Amino acid sequence: MTAEGGTDLRIEIICTGDEVLTGKIVNTNFGYMSQKLEDAGLSVIWGTTVGDDRASLLSAFHLAAGRADAVIVNGGLGPTVDDLSQEIAAQAAGVELELHQGWLEKMEDFFTRRGRTMPPNNTKQAMLPVGAEMVDNPIGTACGFAMDIGGARFFFTPGVPRELRRMLEEQIIPRLLERTGAPATIRLKRYHGYGLGESHVDSLLAGIEALDPTGGVKLGFRAHYPQIETKLTIRGTDPHDVAAKLAPIDAEIRTRLGNFIIAEDDQTLEGVCNAALAAKGGRLAVVETFTSGQIATRLAHLPGAEAVFRRATVARDRSQVFDALTLPPHLDIGEYSEVVAAEVATAARTQAGASHALAVLIDLDDGPDRMDLGGTIWIAVGVEGDTVVRRARILGGREWIRLGAVEMGLDCLRRYLQGLPVIERTDFERR
Amino acid sequence: MTAEGGTDLRIEIICTGDEVLTGKIVNTNFGYMSQKLEDAGLSVIWGTTVGDDRASLLSAFHLAAGRADAVIVNGGLGPTVDDLSQEIAAQAAGVELELHQGWLEKMEDFFTRRGRTMPPNNTKQAMLPVGAEMVDNPIGTACGFAMDIGGARFFFTPGVPRELRRMLEEQIIPRLLERTGAPATIRLKRYHGYGLGESHVDSLLAGIEALDPTGGVKLGFRAHYPQIETKLTIRGTDPHDVAAKLAPIDAEIRTRLGNFIIAEDDQTLEGVCNAALAAKGGRLAVVETFTSGQIATRLAHLPGAEAVFRRATVARDRSQVFDALTLPPHLDIGEYSEVVAAEVATAARTQAGASHALAVLIDLDDGPDRMDLGGTIWIAVGVEGDTVVRRARILGGREWIRLGAVEMGLDCLRRYLQGLPVIERTDFERR
Repeated sequence: MTAEGGTDLRIEIICTGDEVLTGKIVNTNFGYMSQKLEDAGLSVIWGTTVGDDRASLLSAFHLAAGRADAVIVNGGLGPTVDDLSQEIAAQAAGVELELHQGWLEKMEDFFTRRGRTMPPNNTKQAMLPVGAEMVDNPIGTACGFAMDIGGARFFFTPGVPRELRRMLEEQIIPRLLERTGAPATIRLKRYHGYGLGESHVDSLLAGIEALDPTGGVKLGFRAHYPQIETKLTIRGTDPHDVAAKLAPIDAEIRTRLGNFIIAEDDQTLEGVCNAALAAKGGRLAVVETFTSGQIATRLAHLPGAEAVFRRATVARDRSQVFDALTLPPHLDIGEYSEVVAAEVATAARTQAGASHALAVLIDLDDGPDRMDLGGTIWIAVGVEGDTVVRRARILGGREWIRLGAVEMGLDCLRRYLQGLPVIERTDFERR
Repeated sequence: MTAEGGTDLRIEIICTGDEVLTGKIVNTNFGYMSQKLEDAGLSVIWGTTVGDDRASLLSAFHLAAGRADAVIVNGGLGPTVDDLSQEIAAQAAGVELELHQGWLEKMEDFFTRRGRTMPPNNTKQAMLPVGAEMVDNPIGTACGFAMDIGGARFFFTPGVPRELRRMLEEQIIPRLLERTGAPATIRLKRYHGYGLGESHVDSLLAGIEALDPTGGVKLGFRAHYPQIETKLTIRGTDPHDVAAKLAPIDAEIRTRLGNFIIAEDDQTLEGVCNAALAAKGGRLAVVETFTSGQIATRLAHLPGAEAVFRRATVARDRSQVFDALTLPPHLDIGEYSEVVAAEVATAARTQAGASHALAVLIDLDDGPDRMDLGGTIWIAVGVEGDTVVRRARILGGREWIRLGAVEMGLDCLRRYLQGLPVIERTDFERR
């Protein structure tokens, strides 16, 4: 039993296909499904990967049927001879396949709308085990379906990620939640953080779940350096109940994580910066060194960035930075400094006719790449008459420094645009 | 039996850990292992993922012991209470755990060399099932081991990817190959291609395996747009035998794929460009538009690039490109063209004091992002007095165009530096 009175479902995932089994394509579907189910308060207890092989598929279906309450099978619904999911599902349940007339018509229509005739082998995709419930795939020809095998409810899904995702979220998760008998409304609230490590965020948020006495709030993290995502899953009887549970916890999380929340839900750090600049009618100039164009890469392609993003200058050699921005030669005193960083940002802003500038200048330590190689990072951000410079030192090898400096640079820009302190120590810095 | 007279091993992989099962961390280890085994001519027949749960682990071990000849278990060798692999391995085999004095001393030494004292709970990592063969981990404290459970040989490996990779390649694959009785020397030869789709490469290389009458050569592909990797696994009795088998096939592959081979083995396209420039004492200037800094990102961070990579200018707005490079204003005639692209490259080269320039200028179609959104790409590459301009059109949405243009730009640079025709039609272009 869950805290809210629902029944815990034992869920298994079976991924099928030779390309997945042999590592020829990376299986992103498993992690995606398992995370989405977790976000909905559901738990996966077992994962299986098998190839396009009749004996393995049949054995995998039988084993899962004996262990689980619900099983999601991914892949094997295509039109070719090595797509075996319907056939083996029927065999495992001891039933025949029959033509689903409705799906056949839908596929024919799918091809007609694209000015093509349906190839005959696609008919196979409309053959479902007798008694199966059709599960709609609004964006493809692979027909999803659900049926009982042994004591478990099996859900068959397409291998194409965007088709799977839509089917899982719109059709399968709601059916699973209904089976748990748990409160029907679930909301996932996400906070993207930068600057705090996972154990730090964990300790800052200690006791947060208990602020909801009904036990309907679950806290989770997902760290992908240098960002950390804090996730809240809120379960309630209806949207109003969920909103009422979320409000005090949301306020408390904002208080505890403060300026380290960089974006929420589907937002990105670079998207927040781009939107804040657009809202001000701002125009941005960027200067990069060892980050090598990664800051520009995050910003300049965004929809709407053509009006906001003026220009980036990328150079590895210090004298090239000075040349490109025609700085006074006396500034080249061997290393970057607070004065140099501010001058670089100002020159970049002026030359590009921009309102704002972000310069991220890095002195890498000498020597070969190694775990404790460090970099000294000078970040200058600002507008005419107001440039803030922040110095930081990151250890951890070339790629670690590069990733860290990209994020820190973008975060300084966000903080500047949002009127927050640009200089606030992160967990990733050393003295 | 394999073609070379060895026995096919039925291999299974078991990935353990709550973080992998719940999708909190993406499981890259499974695909990595399965691909490396395929590259060595070994095949994985079943994959299992379970959490840090005693009953699930025991059941997974028993099931695999009943199906497979060899099983690789990943994860669960750490010092904390939820690391259960040794305990459950002993239970599955019906033996006790005992302290491995050699590993304990190695761990103590590991900590001493870092100026630390070993915490007491690390002792757990030296507890191995009685009779287990230690499998060395030269870069971590998790002790690998091998043992029989039922009829299968189990190999226990650490979850940390770099520790796993080293142990798999240096110790486990050789042991597995020895078990197959197949010829002991295996070489993997890789060709990285750009410009040809997978089915095109597949048809160009039809019959390649048969050029070796002993059946010791296996061909495979791995496509990751816009590149495609062609892999040859060559098995032989010794390195001389392998080299003799490879030579004629290697020559034939070069003839058939021709200029579309961009790099080999551990090389990258950008690394090849960087090395070719360095060899000429060249200096590069880059201009990017919608690629947004991704070309600079690939080149400028490389070791040694500080001497080769002069400067990149990134701008989204056409007038910003002209302003940044101080081109004559009459050139702004509304769209990019052959003349404009050449002028942009020349100006970038001159301003940066570079010998070579690469300019990638993109006119995106109007309207929202969609599957058939297109982009017109102008690429100019060259040196003083010799600039080549190539025009291409790619359809497929914003991200597809961006990725395609980055690769095409870098490939034009490679072709120019290698004295190959810069203009050669790819499978990704439309008229």
